[in-house]
Amino acid sequence: MSRDLIEQVFVSAFGGPALAALDDGAWVKASDQDFCITTDAFVVKPLFFPGGDIGTLAVCGTVNDLAVMGARPIALSCSFVLEEGLKLAVLEKIAASMAAASKSVGVPIVAGDTKVVEKGAADGVFITTTGIGLRIADVDLGLERIAPGDKVIITGTIADHGTAVLLAREGFQISSQIASDCAPIHSLVEKALASGAGVKFMRDPTRGGLATVLNEVASGCRMCISIEEARVPIRNDVSAALELLGLDPFYVASEGRCVIIAAASDADRLVATLRQDDQGRQSAVIGRVEKSPATMVSLESSVGGRRILPMLAADQLPRIC
Amino acid sequence: MSRDLIEQVFVSAFGGPALAALDDGAWVKASDQDFCITTDAFVVKPLFFPGGDIGTLAVCGTVNDLAVMGARPIALSCSFVLEEGLKLAVLEKIAASMAAASKSVGVPIVAGDTKVVEKGAADGVFITTTGIGLRIADVDLGLERIAPGDKVIITGTIADHGTAVLLAREGFQISSQIASDCAPIHSLVEKALASGAGVKFMRDPTRGGLATVLNEVASGCRMCISIEEARVPIRNDVSAALELLGLDPFYVASEGRCVIIAAASDADRLVATLRQDDQGRQSAVIGRVEKSPATMVSLESSVGGRRILPMLAADQLPRIC
Repeated sequence: MSRDLIEQVFVSAFGGPALAALDDGAWVKASDQDFCITTDAFVVKPLFFPGGDIGTLAVCGTVNDLAVMGARPIALSCSFVLEEGLKLAVLEKIAASMAAASKSVGVPIVAGDTKVVEKGAADGVFITTTGIGLRIADVDLGLERIAPGDKVIITGTIADHGTAVLLAREGFQISSQIASDCAPIHSLVEKALASGAGVKFMRDPTRGGLATVLNEVASGCRMCISIEEARVPIRNDVSAALELLGLDPFYVASEGRCVIIAAASDADRLVATLRQDDQGRQSAVIGRVEKSPATMVSLESSVGGRRILPMLAADQLPRIC
Repeated sequence: MSRDLIEQVFVSAFGGPALAALDDGAWVKASDQDFCITTDAFVVKPLFFPGGDIGTLAVCGTVNDLAVMGARPIALSCSFVLEEGLKLAVLEKIAASMAAASKSVGVPIVAGDTKVVEKGAADGVFITTTGIGLRIADVDLGLERIAPGDKVIITGTIADHGTAVLLAREGFQISSQIASDCAPIHSLVEKALASGAGVKFMRDPTRGGLATVLNEVASGCRMCISIEEARVPIRNDVSAALELLGLDPFYVASEGRCVIIAAASDADRLVATLRQDDQGRQSAVIGRVEKSPATMVSLESSVGGRRILPMLAADQLPRIC
């Protein structure tokens, strides 16, 4: 593919005056709010999976990272590393997904870059997305605000994304209805923040899943996170598929969920608010913050036993996002 | 390499409170200036070459893209795609180069991401860098400001970077003193803008070299760019090496140069200012803008003939940056 052809794909998909100028960068209007930068590389395999593709993932992942920081996304940039020989139709499909996702969240892709490497030097397409967001007024989020007694909320079922991607890989002959939960959650997050409920901290449980986020919270605030397994929403078919694969759902990625730590007195009201949004229908309180044992995540099983959910040092599932 | 190990390499190299927090993003203070976003993927091969490596290139390339837009760089983010089996020492060396470059330009790396793919799925390391810069007050750059009679200036020798990288590739048994010109040019650019000389447009001649930038200018302002070959600074050894390789130096990348279009009356004074800076010692007026033939770049050779420098549709030299 020639440079012209590639530029044509992206410019026609993403549109916008900034990108069409093909300058080295794009201008964004000044604001009196602080702004947040986030960046993520996407190397998901396969490129297309039930519920999404690398393009939707790249846009949603970046929008969601801004949202959980308490920032309203205003602009995205993206870079592509393409393997020579990649079919133009594949690139067009990915660009269309990114354009659709960018349009649905109302955040333009303003700058980009493309590099082509020889066959065998990259696996299809890698995308890096960077997002800029403005601080949502009056929002004050941080691990230091967490206190014993706070409640832990999840906005939907866990592990859908990772399971859908795994099952879509060549070699897995399991047919299922499981689709990725990949979706933008910035509206859901804004509703949560606007509700006036005491939201103290938010994070999306992507790579490493719910257990990894909870461990980061437990280490960060030096408290214990205690979770009741029976309260954690999970689809039966996801649970069954992961059991078959020998994988623990607490470590499998979601891409359209949010973990929220909120003041105990506000938790039920917050869950009611979240459930009114399409992205939060299955929101639930799943546990609480306790003083000790510090830095631990403890899981109370449905039959009453307790186990520790440790931080995993290595990636259990490579190339899930 | 485990996630912990990788994080340790980057956090210890780049430092800074924002990055150390390992949040999903980083906050930047509000400003009353518009800001500019630029993004670039770096896939240079080999990773290390005389005069730099992929790390210096990633930082300088992004800083320079902001500078030529008339923006003062204030923050960088970076993402890495690493091939499994990459030696830790290689990663540490690249991180150290990025840290040194970021320190030397005074622009912190505030956010990052790392993905590891299996052996054979990526060629060593790919880096995407995104830069944020604030508009330098009173700067007004744009192709629409260019007028017939304006002068074309280059701030140093052409084609050093591309030649150094090519010669460093396996298979080329040519030993030389040629080093990449990879360097940050934001200070040079700021001096040019502060000089009060009528700078109308700037662009760094990276991928596709000087000829590509000049063609973009000629098409953009629908005028002719006329260049005198004898005035274009080029090292003798670079010229000789490229002749040997059958490559045209006008299409070979620089990574520490800037093409400036300036009002004719200010051009000599501007060149004198540029020459006072370490990055601009060999600055020279190399041509002028003419009314016609519109959208063409014309090269007057040392012996008096004229040839057209066309826009090349395909990358002459893949993986040069």
